[in-house]
Amino acid sequence: MKIHIIGIGLIGGSFALGIRSAFPDVEIVGTDASETNLEQAKQLSLIVNSAEIEDVKSADVVIVAVPVNVATEVVKKVLDHISDYTLVFDAGSTKAQLCEEIADHPKRRNFLAAHPIAGTEFSGPGAAIPNLFSNKTNIICEVEKTAFKLQEKGLEIFQKLGMRIRYMDPQSHDRHIAYVSHLSHISSFMLGKTVLEKEKNERDIFDLAGSGFASTVRLAKSSPAMWSPIFQQNKKNVLETLNEYIHNLSEFKKLIENDDFQEVYREMERTNHITSILNGIN
Amino acid sequence: MKIHIIGIGLIGGSFALGIRSAFPDVEIVGTDASETNLEQAKQLSLIVNSAEIEDVKSADVVIVAVPVNVATEVVKKVLDHISDYTLVFDAGSTKAQLCEEIADHPKRRNFLAAHPIAGTEFSGPGAAIPNLFSNKTNIICEVEKTAFKLQEKGLEIFQKLGMRIRYMDPQSHDRHIAYVSHLSHISSFMLGKTVLEKEKNERDIFDLAGSGFASTVRLAKSSPAMWSPIFQQNKKNVLETLNEYIHNLSEFKKLIENDDFQEVYREMERTNHITSILNGIN
Repeated sequence: MKIHIIGIGLIGGSFALGIRSAFPDVEIVGTDASETNLEQAKQLSLIVNSAEIEDVKSADVVIVAVPVNVATEVVKKVLDHISDYTLVFDAGSTKAQLCEEIADHPKRRNFLAAHPIAGTEFSGPGAAIPNLFSNKTNIICEVEKTAFKLQEKGLEIFQKLGMRIRYMDPQSHDRHIAYVSHLSHISSFMLGKTVLEKEKNERDIFDLAGSGFASTVRLAKSSPAMWSPIFQQNKKNVLETLNEYIHNLSEFKKLIENDDFQEVYREMERTNHITSILNGIN
Repeated sequence: MKIHIIGIGLIGGSFALGIRSAFPDVEIVGTDASETNLEQAKQLSLIVNSAEIEDVKSADVVIVAVPVNVATEVVKKVLDHISDYTLVFDAGSTKAQLCEEIADHPKRRNFLAAHPIAGTEFSGPGAAIPNLFSNKTNIICEVEKTAFKLQEKGLEIFQKLGMRIRYMDPQSHDRHIAYVSHLSHISSFMLGKTVLEKEKNERDIFDLAGSGFASTVRLAKSSPAMWSPIFQQNKKNVLETLNEYIHNLSEFKKLIENDDFQEVYREMERTNHITSILNGIN
């Protein structure tokens, strides 16, 4: 099997490591906008060789793991060049715009729209992890638009990497992911900003921060190049989550202002209930 | 050495485990408002016996680890009953009100105001951990008001538990801790609330949540009985942090509304800088 990975960073590189471990005979080549990334990917043995996008015609599977603002263009270009038997899947955090823009491509049936819910706050080939996808959810959109044989090929890879599959339409995906992923990143970035602004002249104050602060602000280390296009493509849903989040914070603030600490207590108690729901997430 | 711990939950219980490991000959007794907690603390060998508050007169060290709304009253009562040679320290997340209210107590010099920056989102004796305080910061306020010999006794315990000490006045403590701890808890609780409200009829949507969401919402599992009084006692500072946080979120929202994704990118890039600052925190 020959795999061609386009975008050989945290996600693309982790696919390389996971797939080579599950399919020992695989040959993996890579394309990346950054020469430095390509060199590093070769040194780390994520890929055996660099390749041009046009080389996808000799691949069995093409994985597109680039920021969502260039994903559509890359997927189209890949579909223009592949053979009839090549599976192409992506890994982006937004799905509606991509699915819409490639809907009429003559090779639409070669494409599987995927979103593995996996990642860390780090980026680049050096951040790739062998078991990143193990026990993670992979959301697949519009599965019925992919040729049956190619669905099977994709599912075989996902299952060997240990992923569980959820099927969803692109609009629902984008709406729900805005809540359980995109909003977390904004809350974390703005928490980081608020504390940095306050404490900019007192760097050693961060000495006082504990694991709780580190946990809530962890996502503020994430890559702007990846996240800014996500907020752009999912603008409508992200704004909705932000409105509701700001509203809830303002209401909580009012309770404190009015010394209604009984209701502050109840608000937190009701939210504690999230513990049982989250038990399945590591 | 005889230690009397009042409030034998996550913090009190972890002190018990850490101190017994560092001082093998120690005898530890405990007081708790909950009979269930006391029984569990005995079963877990955190304490050898339960005791009344009045029994503090026979203790060498008294540790007060109760929610901050009752801490002042408990510390006063303890100081009323101790010997001249007993050290009393607390572990609360607010310091200004406590320090002010006990300022004129005849046994003020027996008290050391402490705040170990350590904890988890869990509570109760079952949540106690042997090395909770290892490599953590302990903030000590108004150290000059504690008798020198008793300062030494406290420092010996903190050092044997592996803590680093920072000295600070109570007002600065409360102001800085509002940023690096209290605000994180509110941002996390309200994030949990926002997602729960949206997804209440679609429980399996949480299946889609990844480690990023789990990390930012972790503190929403925290105890309302502990946190509601903290927000009450630190009302002024907490409201200030909330105002700034809500302001920053609203400004970020405006950038998205106005399609200014270049500035969205820059905002995140500037905040990325928090990575280097946080490197010291686990």
